[in-house]
This record gives sequence, structure tokens and C-alpha cells, in this order.
Amino acid sequence: MFESAELGHQTDKATFESEVPALRAALLDAQFELLDLRRFAVVVLINGIDGAGKGETVNLLNEWMDPRHIQTWAFDVPTEEESARPFMWRYWRALPPKGKIGVMFNNWYTEPIRERVERSSKRGEFDQHLAEILRFEEMLVREGVLVVKLWFHLSRAGQKKRLKDLEKDPKTRWRVTERDWRFYDLYERYREVAGHALRLTSTGDCPWTIVDGSDPRFRALFVGRTLLEALQKRLAIAQRNWVSRQTAAPLPPQIDNLNLLNALQLRQEMDKRSYADQLERLQGRLALLTRDEAFAQRSLVLVFEGADAAGKGGAIRRITSALDARQYRIVPIAAPTEEERAQPYLWRFWRHLPGHGKAVVFDRSWYGRVLVERVEGFCSEADWMRAYAEINDFEDQLVRSGSIVVKFWLAISKDEQLERFQAREAEPHKRFKITEEDWRNREKWDDYARAVCDMVDRTSTEIAPWTLVEADNKYFARIKILRTLCQALESALGA
Amino acid sequence: MFESAELGHQTDKATFESEVPALRAALLDAQFELLDLRRFAVVVLINGIDGAGKGETVNLLNEWMDPRHIQTWAFDVPTEEESARPFMWRYWRALPPKGKIGVMFNNWYTEPIRERVERSSKRGEFDQHLAEILRFEEMLVREGVLVVKLWFHLSRAGQKKRLKDLEKDPKTRWRVTERDWRFYDLYERYREVAGHALRLTSTGDCPWTIVDGSDPRFRALFVGRTLLEALQKRLAIAQRNWVSRQTAAPLPPQIDNLNLLNALQLRQEMDKRSYADQLERLQGRLALLTRDEAFAQRSLVLVFEGADAAGKGGAIRRITSALDARQYRIVPIAAPTEEERAQPYLWRFWRHLPGHGKAVVFDRSWYGRVLVERVEGFCSEADWMRAYAEINDFEDQLVRSGSIVVKFWLAISKDEQLERFQAREAEPHKRFKITEEDWRNREKWDDYARAVCDMVDRTSTEIAPWTLVEADNKYFARIKILRTLCQALESALGA
Repeated sequence: MFESAELGHQTDKATFESEVPALRAALLDAQFELLDLRRFAVVVLINGIDGAGKGETVNLLNEWMDPRHIQTWAFDVPTEEESARPFMWRYWRALPPKGKIGVMFNNWYTEPIRERVERSSKRGEFDQHLAEILRFEEMLVREGVLVVKLWFHLSRAGQKKRLKDLEKDPKTRWRVTERDWRFYDLYERYREVAGHALRLTSTGDCPWTIVDGSDPRFRALFVGRTLLEALQKRLAIAQRNWVSRQTAAPLPPQIDNLNLLNALQLRQEMDKRSYADQLERLQGRLALLTRDEAFAQRSLVLVFEGADAAGKGGAIRRITSALDARQYRIVPIAAPTEEERAQPYLWRFWRHLPGHGKAVVFDRSWYGRVLVERVEGFCSEADWMRAYAEINDFEDQLVRSGSIVVKFWLAISKDEQLERFQAREAEPHKRFKITEEDWRNREKWDDYARAVCDMVDRTSTEIAPWTLVEADNKYFARIKILRTLCQALESALGA
Repeated sequence: MFESAELGHQTDKATFESEVPALRAALLDAQFELLDLRRFAVVVLINGIDGAGKGETVNLLNEWMDPRHIQTWAFDVPTEEESARPFMWRYWRALPPKGKIGVMFNNWYTEPIRERVERSSKRGEFDQHLAEILRFEEMLVREGVLVVKLWFHLSRAGQKKRLKDLEKDPKTRWRVTERDWRFYDLYERYREVAGHALRLTSTGDCPWTIVDGSDPRFRALFVGRTLLEALQKRLAIAQRNWVSRQTAAPLPPQIDNLNLLNALQLRQEMDKRSYADQLERLQGRLALLTRDEAFAQRSLVLVFEGADAAGKGGAIRRITSALDARQYRIVPIAAPTEEERAQPYLWRFWRHLPGHGKAVVFDRSWYGRVLVERVEGFCSEADWMRAYAEINDFEDQLVRSGSIVVKFWLAISKDEQLERFQAREAEPHKRFKITEEDWRNREKWDDYARAVCDMVDRTSTEIAPWTLVEADNKYFARIKILRTLCQALESALGA
């Protein structure tokens, strides 16, 4: 893995000075093409051994290119806000928008490797973490992001020399800490763990490039050319207006007419009085649960999906009226904003994740990817097919970080929807108006039904199951939702 | 101040139940009109005595209106990220976009009042803080935000009764803390301090409304109607497509042709060799200063303004190449994004403020308001006239929170600009292309010059002075900028 990088590559001054001007010009050209196109973002990961010139190299890249369009992030110990959310949250926040380059020091590889070197994680946990990283990077690539992964390496002797040299110079002494020397003592262990990580996470789409860090001129040219080549290749593809040629594996065939939705008995009995009684009791239960001490260290992520006029808004209000206004936020999902369109699909949901003791209710959600975007053809088949796994990963991260994820699909019959549309159209209040789009969606009823069934089959997991709610009777639906929510909270909080 | 609110208002059940339906419908209508128009945002401040029903009332508003378009914020002890930035930063982050309602508990009034009650701030400091709040709210109003300020009040006996009642019920017991009782002991003091704050911050545009909190039905109707009336009045204005009728006081007349810019000797001598020497020395000095221990608790906000082709980018690169890539970010200011356009003008700068030990370089800045927006007529005269004071307030907050603010205007002659434009047009690289807009801006040279002089006169302050940089010679300009920056850092860090 590290063999070539330990050969002691060197570049003499004359070669360096003759090559740099053309390299700089080419990098700058590529950067401006990237900016003009605004079709993809670039993420550069900077990892490796301390003292191998990571900081200097990034400084140099900033000098060679236009630093106004490079965003550099260095992650330290997680802050309060970061600790309350999944591990990847702070990296999602730092993703560069299309057209920009994001350089990340101490990124998602740093902690897993450090923990494994210090043996505070087991081999199995480490491999699991690496597998998650792989899936995350694969998602980035599919979303169009160019990921360049650089590993700065030094031989053991080389590292010692670098640290000593830095310590000698008063201008650089501040950069060598005790932690660096402690890590130096673990050199062999570190090399072994890193080698393992690099092997498991070098893929065709996101290979690692190992940089021999011993000679500043060599590594500068080497990194500059690596980045330039990656940029130029990706730009050439973007300029040909490239569309993903991935083909998705087919979904299972439909043999008969029985599916999850039409197996439901949509009209369930419940009279107003029984509703009022149960509503009050369940809201009381919910109020106590969300004020439970145990909830202060957890969070709640609620997802509401359903056909138009299925009663999502009404159900959400019955939940929130049992909560303290200070602890929840409702996020209605409509078309993405300009800033959201410049990011991978899930980015706009990550930005709304709740902190400890808080609840976020998504009124429509990331499932739009496999519902409306699939049915309307807003994304390719390959895009929505991969979304099932991406969503499961996302929810898995939520649950592991302490969130309680509860998802509802509100199912109504086509006739019931028609009645509700007509009732709304008779309403004088424009706030309930039915739009052309609502009528158009209705024409695609069967396509949506198919998409819903596939969605439930593929994303109802043991950690975040779907609850299908028979919703022709609003009373019944609301009570079922509240009861399911209370049960989920009780089981999660051990209350 | 609190007299009416201590009369013990009560609403009987029959009246309440007969009035609520119409009130709810009207509130919901107003809310949807707000959302449809998307012309202004609503900020509702919830303050007052603990136990006076603040939480319940907000919960009720959420129940009465559509909670999906209400964002409720409760601020607690500042987090790490918040502490590293000016006091108002977290409130800026929470401002609702146009079309939405933001409800803020424990807002910008809470801390100043608490500190004064506990005598940890002096009367003079308190009044100063209130004056700043006044200016902030005035800015919100001018930016179109509807600010509704509600103060929930109880008599001393009333507060005691409420706290006792809450404690008796197991469902509400969790809400009474020791802090509430400690505050109760300070009732008279609190009433006096609050009365003072309310008097000084009740203005024609943002008056306080005092809510008698003793009877839940009365206070619910009272708050609902207050909010409804405020919304309806503001909506009526927004629908008439209202433009601010404020007239600005005139700027001083121009009597002769002498101004700040043409008093400068734009072409200064500096040869390449002397430049290279000084550059290296100054960059070394800057590198050490930004790695100084004292800087770890401060931050740096750099502002670059200047005519097109004045050399901002080149000067910025000479600074950043002395910094560690992990510690700075360059924010190039172009047209605001969709999310930024839905917020008050300064919002998009607040979101980029640096944390401790970090630097942010603004390549163009909030001064666009009094430069391009003034000259091109993108905002009204009243808008840019008030911007001078708003900007001074903003920078004052930055400086008081520990930021070092350094601002440069790069001045070049009209002839020099022409030469640089022509040189750029001869360049094969499109990254330096001159646009139509650049040529158009050039035609307004005198208008821009006037705007720059006014800007410097009004915003060069003892805490954040402007440095005018003679920039016809790039070498000279870069050295002057680096030297000024080093001196500013040295003086601020006591280095």
C-alpha cells in the first residue's frame, strides 16, 4: 500500500520551478470551468501521518488556485451542537455547493482510524464504520460530487525527522504537540490500521492517492497534478452533458392485484365521542412522554407521507398540540431552494435534524425521492433505486445517534379523496384550495400506489418501520397515529 | 405600566367558546395571506413573568393557526458556537423568512433584564443594551418585519398562586424549577426593572403589549386578537404594495471638487525588489500574529472593497498565503441567494461570522448597500441612508465580541482601470474576462466616487476605521494592506 510512497521521491528546484507555472495556470483554468459550469462540487479529503505536509500542501493549493472558491474545513472535537446529532452531521453541513471545492482536514476517516489505533474500537466496529463511509462516498459520487482522497505518508524515520525539524524552527514549533509524539510512538500500529482502512475504502470511483510527504517540492507537484487530472476528467464528462448510464436492477414483477395498500380496510369505525375520549388520553400520555427525563437525551424524527388530502396536516396538529411549542419544529417539504439544489439530495433534510430533547415533524420528507420524483420522472431510475439504501443508511444513522424515527403513510381511497377535493373546492377559504397539480397527481393514482408499496417494502426496517394508517375516517387515523407514536416512545424510553 | 394587567381580567367560558371559532378562522386566513404574499416576516416576542402562561399561549396559537408555518425558538444558555460570536448572532440565525411567523421565547430581552435584576449589570449598561435593542428592532421594522412584543404579567399574589397550582398537578410539576421560586422572591425588583425596560423599548413601530396572565381564557383571546390585528394591519399595507415613504435627511452638499478619493496620490512608487523583500517580512509577521495564543480567543473580519480591477483578489491572496488554510474562509459577495433575499439585508453576512481563532475575508461586503445598491437604485434612499447606522451597529457588535475588523478601500484612477480592462480583454483566459457590467459600472464612476466618500465619512469609526489604499501600483497597495493588517493585529493582541 505505502511502498511507492516510501521510496523517497525528490524533485529538484529547477524542475519544480519550470513545471509550476503551467500547473498553476491549468489548475486555475479547471477551477474556473468548474465554477462556470456549476454542475458538480469537489470534495478533497486530506488525511495521513502528522508532519507529512498536509497543511503546507493545502496552503499551496489555495495559493495556486483562487482561494475565494475553496472552502477549507478542519474538524476538531465535536461541539455541543454536533454531539447531539449523528456522526456525519457536521460533514454534511460542510459539503461544498456545486461549482466549489471543499477541502476537509480531519474528516470522516480521522475518528474511526484514531479509535482503532488506540484500540478503543474493535476490528468489527472499525470495518462496519468503513463500510458506512464507503456507502456515503458512493452516494456522493452518484450525486455528482468529485471526491479526491489524499493520504499523506512518511516512513518512520521520515516522520521523526519532520517533527524534529518543525520543533527546531520557532516559526513552526507551535505545530508540534505532545499528541503528535504520542502518535509517533504508535507509528507501526498506525501504518497497519491505515493500510487496512485504505484497502477497504479504495474503490474505482473514489480511490485513495498516497502522497510521499518527505519532499515538499515533490509532494506539491504530485498533489497538484493528481487534483488537476481528476478535475479535467470530470469536467470533460460534465461538459458532454453526461447523464448517468447506470442501470438499475429491476423491481419484482407484479403478478396479481394484491398489494400493501389495497389489502388495507381503509374505512374504519370510530365515532366522535370515542375519538374525543381517546384523543385526550393519548395526548396526555404523549405530553408526559416528551417531558420524560429520558427524552432529554433523545430526539424524535416524525415522517408524514400520504396522498393529497389524506389528512396529514390535521394529524400533525393533534400531535403538536400535546407538545411544548419550544421543543418541536414542523418542516413542510416543498420544492428545494436554490442553495438546496446545489447539494446532494439528502442535504436539505440533514440541515433540519433535531438536537437533544427536540422533535422535528417532516410534512413530506426524503421519501419524495422514491414517490413524486420517481413517478414524475424528476430523477433517473438509477437515482431513485439507490435512494432506498441511502435512506436506510440515513435513518440508521439517526437511530444510532439517539433519534426515535416514526414514519406514517396515510392511506385513503380514491373515492374518499375525490369527496375531500370536492368539499374543499366548495370551501370559500382559499387556504384549502385544490390546485391543478392535485388533480394531475390523482390521474397517476396507480403509479403512486406502486411507488408506495415499493417504498414500504424497501424502507420499513426494524429500526424505523412504516405504519400504514387507514385514513378514510380521520378520527380513526389520528388515534392510530397517536397510539403508535406513544408506543414507539414508550418502548424507546423504557417508560 | 402594568396597572391594567393587574385588574384581574376574566373571560367566562360561554363568551370564550362563542368567540374562538371566528378568531381562529381569521387568524388562519391572515396566516395564509402572509404565506401567499411572502412580502414580510413576523417576529413574535414572548416575555414576562414565569407562570403567566407564556408556553400555554404559544401552544394555543400553534393549535389555532397552521403550525407548519410557525417557527418557535427557545434560547437557553449560549452554546459554544454561540458564545464565540456577538450576542445577537443566535437571534439572527433564528429570524423567520418572509411569509413565516417566528415565535421567540427567551429572546434578546431576557439576558439584559435578568442581569439587571441580579445586579450583575449596571443601570448605564442596561440602558445601553436597551438602546441597542431598539436600534435592532427599528432595523427589522425598516426591513419590513412585523414585530409583535408580548409581555406576560401577573400580580405578586397571582404569580405565587400559579406556581403553587403548577406544582400540585403531576402533569405540570416538571415546569416549576427552583429558579422560578428564586425569581419569585425578586418579584418587586423584577417588576421595576421590567417596567423600565418596557418604557424605554415601547416605540410607535414596536410597542409592547402587556398581557394579564391570570385567566387562561382572557389571555388567549387577548393575545389572539392582538396578533390578528397586527397581522391584518400589516397585510393591508403589504397588499397596497406599499413602499416606504420615509424621507432621508439630505447628505451634506458638495461645494468644491475636493474629496477623499481625489485627494489621494494614487500612483505610489515601489519596485519589484523592495516589494518582494517587504512582502516576505510582512507575511512572516502576519503568520506569527495569527498563530499567537492571544488570537485563539479573538477573530478577524476583513473587508475588501474597491472599483472593478482594483486588485482585491491579488491582495487577498497575499494575505491568505500567510495564514493556515484551516483558519480562514473567503466569502465572495455576489447577488444574494433565494434564502438570503427572504431575510433582512444584513442576514447574509451574519451567517458567515468567524468563530474563535478564525478569519473571514469578505471580498465585497455589506457595504454593497451604500455603494452598488445606492448607485443603481436597488434600494430606496431611506434604505441606504439608514444602512450607515446599521452597519456601524453591526461592526460595533463584532468588535465587542472580540473580532478585529479591518476594512480596505482599494482606490485606482479611471485611466488605470481602463488599462487593466484592456489588458484583461487581451488575455486568452476567460477567467479574467471583462463583462458588459464592468463597462457600465465605469460610466457611473462619479456616482460611485460620491458614494465611496459618503461611506468613508459615515462608517470610518474608531473601532473599525477604513484604510484607503492607493492602488495604481499593485506592489505598493499589497504592502500597505499587509502592513496595516499587521499593525491592527498587533495593537489588538497587545503583541
